[in-house]
Amino acid sequence: MRAARYYGNKDIRIEEIDEPTAGAGEVLIDVAFCGICGTDLHEYLDGPIFCPTPDTPTSWTGETAPVTLGHEFSGVVAALGEGITDLEVGDTVVVEPYILKDGTDTGPDSTDYHLSEGMNFIGLGGGGGGLAEKLAVRRRWVHKIDPSIPLDQAALIEPLAVAYHGVQRSGAKAGDIAVIGGAGPIGLLTGAVLRALGVTVVISELSSLRRQKALDSGAADHALDPAAVDVAQEVHDLTGGKGADIAFEATSVQAVLDTLMDALRPTGVLLNISIWGHRSDFDMHKLVMKEIDLRGSIGYVNNHPAVIELVESGKIDLAPFITGRIQLEDLIDKGFDTLIHRNETAVKILVSPSGKGVDPA
Amino acid sequence: MRAARYYGNKDIRIEEIDEPTAGAGEVLIDVAFCGICGTDLHEYLDGPIFCPTPDTPTSWTGETAPVTLGHEFSGVVAALGEGITDLEVGDTVVVEPYILKDGTDTGPDSTDYHLSEGMNFIGLGGGGGGLAEKLAVRRRWVHKIDPSIPLDQAALIEPLAVAYHGVQRSGAKAGDIAVIGGAGPIGLLTGAVLRALGVTVVISELSSLRRQKALDSGAADHALDPAAVDVAQEVHDLTGGKGADIAFEATSVQAVLDTLMDALRPTGVLLNISIWGHRSDFDMHKLVMKEIDLRGSIGYVNNHPAVIELVESGKIDLAPFITGRIQLEDLIDKGFDTLIHRNETAVKILVSPSGKGVDPA
Ligand SMILES: [Zn+2]
Ligand SMILES: [Zn+2]
Repeated sequence: MRAARYYGNKDIRIEEIDEPTAGAGEVLIDVAFCGICGTDLHEYLDGPIFCPTPDTPTSWTGETAPVTLGHEFSGVVAALGEGITDLEVGDTVVVEPYILKDGTDTGPDSTDYHLSEGMNFIGLGGGGGGLAEKLAVRRRWVHKIDPSIPLDQAALIEPLAVAYHGVQRSGAKAGDIAVIGGAGPIGLLTGAVLRALGVTVVISELSSLRRQKALDSGAADHALDPAAVDVAQEVHDLTGGKGADIAFEATSVQAVLDTLMDALRPTGVLLNISIWGHRSDFDMHKLVMKEIDLRGSIGYVNNHPAVIELVESGKIDLAPFITGRIQLEDLIDKGFDTLIHRNETAVKILVSPSGKGVDPA
Repeated sequence: MRAARYYGNKDIRIEEIDEPTAGAGEVLIDVAFCGICGTDLHEYLDGPIFCPTPDTPTSWTGETAPVTLGHEFSGVVAALGEGITDLEVGDTVVVEPYILKDGTDTGPDSTDYHLSEGMNFIGLGGGGGGLAEKLAVRRRWVHKIDPSIPLDQAALIEPLAVAYHGVQRSGAKAGDIAVIGGAGPIGLLTGAVLRALGVTVVISELSSLRRQKALDSGAADHALDPAAVDVAQEVHDLTGGKGADIAFEATSVQAVLDTLMDALRPTGVLLNISIWGHRSDFDMHKLVMKEIDLRGSIGYVNNHPAVIELVESGKIDLAPFITGRIQLEDLIDKGFDTLIHRNETAVKILVSPSGKGVDPA
């Protein structure tokens, strides 16, 4: 079968590999669509980070490069390994793509298995990936979805779970006012989750095309240009002088963080949902004097059932966030290059390893 | 009567002023003891900050310098203004020393009156102060205490409320493990509150005298020297590799903050309870990857009843934290100078404006 394999920095190859089979307790999945994630770009440009090298496994699994990429995918059950009785061949599924050490508590009450030592991801640290025609995944990480959810939209459930987890950690509730710094994929999906919960969303974003996307896609009620207006002042005006209840930093840019600190009301909550490659020049005194809660958020933990329910119920429409469906062979040219050069209209580009459902040329 | 009056930077004078009277809705208090706070030192060395100048009121009250200092005090009701029927002359009381704008919601359910616009403090922004023989305070801010609480210890209820508020914001619960960076007055009182709630406390502190004080006073179960041991590693060893549940930064030193980030477990809570005069070189990536909650805490809000109950019930013994009782005339020489030169055995020095109860010379 065809797979996109990570060999190292700027070295991803589309090649033929053996098809996997479903071992005991595993589910074999025919991949329908797999999204390209900022993390994938990061491995390509600056990696390996989560990925192993040819000599040194980064994960406790012992797998070394090359590894198959792709952790945001949907598919159809193709075969069931020994002992699995609660799924059927033909079921539509998504995957919560964790690779965790045996013995980690992944029960429904766990709130921290995603932070356990040695945590890695299917499609980065090993275990196959969604940028291949098939992969085998342990039953624990396979979530059945209603067949009414189109499989291209279903591939966005993984990044939606990232957004959902951040929103859950923020304590957002209906009637709140939220400000999001940055209208990239995670900023937009965060807005979609917030609005589904009844929160009013203000997005601050430099790109006019992305601001328009935020409004058109249902991710924001208001989209502000921080080069043209004083975002903190606008938020105070919108809230009768009170300030925002919650804020989400999705850019890893210091000026954006400072603006969000100013836009928040006293006792407001600020979620950092971006990856910072450098330390922040952080205004601790303001955090103290406004009693702000700054919370980190990464990945998801027991969030998939609630996220799938939001999509199945129609409370979130993922269609507007899909801006391309490409062949596996076009991964670098039409996928990575488009995203790396920050095409302002691109949000989520999906790859179809089978070639089915790609956009007309 | 005699009062310590703030005229400006390094200019505090002990002088004779008129006695106040209790206006309608006010309580006239005979001050018993008043503690010297780090904030007072800050006004003296680097101010005015909360205090007004002779020309410009910093507070909405319109008061200008000089103002009477002292916000950590206990006393006895000397007279009651018109309309007060729920106190009696002779009652022992402490004061929650806020000056808030009329119309601020200070009801029992408010969680943010301490962050309201124009907030200032009695004994800094105006309204008289505890470094005088008497002052008149609005009924709302007067809290009756049981006469069994010695009045010198009662003067520590205000800083104890600061510590309590930080602990409350941390969500600490019995069985948790907490690390405190710094064994100054607020670090020690935070430890006392935590231990009263059943939390195990580790204090990191460079001074051996302060470490000993932390152990002797009941503020800590363990006291570590960060110059001699790897505090984060020790905390992990103490917790079976898990890390601390909560941490309190009470030094405004970057290295201490970094150590606390390392000492915390994933999803741990870090309270910043110190005043930073500079921005922090903050490790945002670590906050994200460990999903740490960094929370600011300042002052107190509807915390006094619970704090008074902790002292009345004997769960916290404030006696060990009193390291001096001096005359008002000795305020600068025996009070400020001792604290400014960081006498390592000094914790809380109390002033008796009446001269009663001072330590023998
Ligand atoms: Zn991703
Ligand atoms: Zn104070």
